[in-house]
Amino acid sequence: MRLLNAGEVQLVDYMGSDLSVVQAARISNGAAMPEWRGAPDERLIKFLAEHQHMTPFEHATFKFYVKAPIFVVREWQRHRAFSYNELSGRYKKLKPEFFYPDMVRTQDEKNKQGSLPTDDYELGRQMRLALVDAYTTSWDRYEEMLELGVARELARAVLPVGTYTEMYVTGNFRNWVHWYNLRGAPDAQLEIQLYAQVVGDYLSEKMPLSWEALAK
Amino acid sequence: MRLLNAGEVQLVDYMGSDLSVVQAARISNGAAMPEWRGAPDERLIKFLAEHQHMTPFEHATFKFYVKAPIFVVREWQRHRAFSYNELSGRYKKLKPEFFYPDMVRTQDEKNKQGSLPTDDYELGRQMRLALVDAYTTSWDRYEEMLELGVARELARAVLPVGTYTEMYVTGNFRNWVHWYNLRGAPDAQLEIQLYAQVVGDYLSEKMPLSWEALAK
Amino acid sequence: MRLLNAGEVQLVDYMGSDLSVVQAARISNGAAMPEWRGAPDERLIKFLAEHQHMTPFEHATFKFYVKAPIFVVREWQRHRAFSYNELSGRYKKLKPEFFYPDMVRTQDEKNKQGSLPTDDYELGRQMRLALVDAYTTSWDRYEEMLELGVARELARAVLPVGTYTEMYVTGNFRNWVHWYNLRGAPDAQLEIQLYAQVVGDYLSEKMPLSWEALAK
Amino acid sequence: MRLLNAGEVQLVDYMGSDLSVVQAARISNGAAMPEWRGAPDERLIKFLAEHQHMTPFEHATFKFYVKAPIFVVREWQRHRAFSYNELSGRYKKLKPEFFYPDMVRTQDEKNKQGSLPTDDYELGRQMRLALVDAYTTSWDRYEEMLELGVARELARAVLPVGTYTEMYVTGNFRNWVHWYNLRGAPDAQLEIQLYAQVVGDYLSEKMPLSWEALAK
Repeated sequence: MRLLNAGEVQLVDYMGSDLSVVQAARISNGAAMPEWRGAPDERLIKFLAEHQHMTPFEHATFKFYVKAPIFVVREWQRHRAFSYNELSGRYKKLKPEFFYPDMVRTQDEKNKQGSLPTDDYELGRQMRLALVDAYTTSWDRYEEMLELGVARELARAVLPVGTYTEMYVTGNFRNWVHWYNLRGAPDAQLEIQLYAQVVGDYLSEKMPLSWEALAK
Repeated sequence: MRLLNAGEVQLVDYMGSDLSVVQAARISNGAAMPEWRGAPDERLIKFLAEHQHMTPFEHATFKFYVKAPIFVVREWQRHRAFSYNELSGRYKKLKPEFFYPDMVRTQDEKNKQGSLPTDDYELGRQMRLALVDAYTTSWDRYEEMLELGVARELARAVLPVGTYTEMYVTGNFRNWVHWYNLRGAPDAQLEIQLYAQVVGDYLSEKMPLSWEALAK
Repeated sequence: MRLLNAGEVQLVDYMGSDLSVVQAARISNGAAMPEWRGAPDERLIKFLAEHQHMTPFEHATFKFYVKAPIFVVREWQRHRAFSYNELSGRYKKLKPEFFYPDMVRTQDEKNKQGSLPTDDYELGRQMRLALVDAYTTSWDRYEEMLELGVARELARAVLPVGTYTEMYVTGNFRNWVHWYNLRGAPDAQLEIQLYAQVVGDYLSEKMPLSWEALAK
Repeated sequence: MRLLNAGEVQLVDYMGSDLSVVQAARISNGAAMPEWRGAPDERLIKFLAEHQHMTPFEHATFKFYVKAPIFVVREWQRHRAFSYNELSGRYKKLKPEFFYPDMVRTQDEKNKQGSLPTDDYELGRQMRLALVDAYTTSWDRYEEMLELGVARELARAVLPVGTYTEMYVTGNFRNWVHWYNLRGAPDAQLEIQLYAQVVGDYLSEKMPLSWEALAK
């Protein structure tokens, strides 16, 4: 699944379902042994969500492959309940792939962390030129240092946070929905919102009742 | 898989393999995209273990059903990296299933938390009588209170920690092996060591190279 | 601080204040260096709570000593964000201290995990007799086994979950309030609600603005 | 405490001591109530470390202020047991402070993630020129975009990972030493090793016996 100018999200592996939520919840009254084959129970799942009984949602896990700009990954990795493995600029020369927004956004002066989309063509053009110049210069100096023999871990210091990186991220359903509710919300940065939407599409497809009960 | 006089461990669900360890590790040098289909790499897995690069072992997850005495579950639940759902004595009248050891063990006077197996037949008989008497009296009073109308959450106060309970436990491979290395060790209580052995058998079967590299 | 028939909660140590919440939050706009000495800012703290910006509440930590029945501690330790150290029945012969409720409660038939207080004197008397009999028998068999030389870790199997145990619990303010909101709520068991109230009193005294903003 | 060309570490607040480790450990045999005033016990602390009884080290917590390049903070924040609050490029225009190494290092061809210090003056000069050019161009384009009205969260995409950022980090002693053992090790990047040394100096001063027992 492609997003942004060069981003990507793929569901690589997962375990569990709406049924595993019900199974885990029902063990509390001794009614869901491993052999149990029941139906997903919409009412029970809603009840769990409303009463904040969240642990039954932790037995389903999802592993994603993600390609995103460093500034998106920085926000993502603040979530400490996931397992991450990421491309390393110490091991490997990075690739010249950089983030460009589809549309320019201006500073929101009321909401100090917000931005406002605009169709100002000239502003968009100027932003694009500025991005190209900064990205190109940084990349040229990066390559130059590597050719001179400077260590990768030092040379990378010039690479911008708009550079794309890649990672695997694994977590349980409870934590994924919590992440979605924060990073898919309107006050999150638009770019991470888009990743949250794609992740959310996968989650809602695999566990529709649990998604319905927990996602905002 | 049965163990103790009435215990049980079942692998209910899992995700991942030795291959997923390698895949996660190789993203650090950009060499393991989701499409990648390589072979498990014994040398790489050993290298990760020796250099304490533990995150690649976190993308595989295992969910177990466990039936065990409360005193075993108490030690188990001190491990905070797992997800637990357990039978509740508030929701449900518990069952009269209690722990009896196969063999009596005497107090180790040197190792204050240890015990020593003995084949003293008479001691075994006396221990068994003491256990039966305490368990039976507790259970009779529990049932009596329930019949009088006392709330389950109060009446359960008399149930011994030798009573069997049931739970689902989910965690990633890294955390399962860490748990195994502590709870399967000779200074752990014999009863939880037995659970660790069964869990370890499942883990080593599903991820033999990772097991070999991490388990002590 | 005493509670139940033999329980106790003491605040042993803590670090941080409403000011440390503000300091942590203000670093996001570069306005709260370590030298900064500002005033607690009620509006900012409320804003953080409303927008679920929870990390600033994590830099204050509280350590409590707790004496409680095992069944209370079992519910407590399901919270995985705390650090625990507890009295061990493997190392140490436990003490004959057992939980007795002030007042009997009957089973709530509508809310299956609930209970209803009653002033039925005769029921209270019968419950008390049942508790005494079960506790006394269990304790006598426990002591008998220890005198016979049975290992402490085995003999303890007969001890009821109403036995008092002791622990140190440390966690950050965010996690303490989360715990309070779940365990101090009306659908929690009354006994742990009482512990939550005492902990809450300490927290609200030390960090009144943050408490006001987060506690339900 | 200054380090690198513009970095800083300050211990802002802490709670606990070698004594609190001993107190927490001794509750397991019922010998360390809150009133207890004993002496730190070197042998016990060593015993805990050797037997991997790590929870007693979790009741002491340390809060640091850190100023470091983004690439250092990126490695730091992969440690999920800490609490972080960081300067935000969405809220606030960042400052033109960039990382320059004291000494150039060349790529280690054997250890693919390593580097080798060199006193090659000419190489150092060329690296410095490359860094200056990339940093200056990126900064100029950043300012230009901000002046044009582009939102901060977009304009920051050009800022290099060598830009300094600031954060508060809080965690317990166990987790700090674990972090030190990984990030202060010779195979970590030199820049984060330096931060680990400063943090380690604070920790060893405040909890010398525990440090001696756990730090590698």
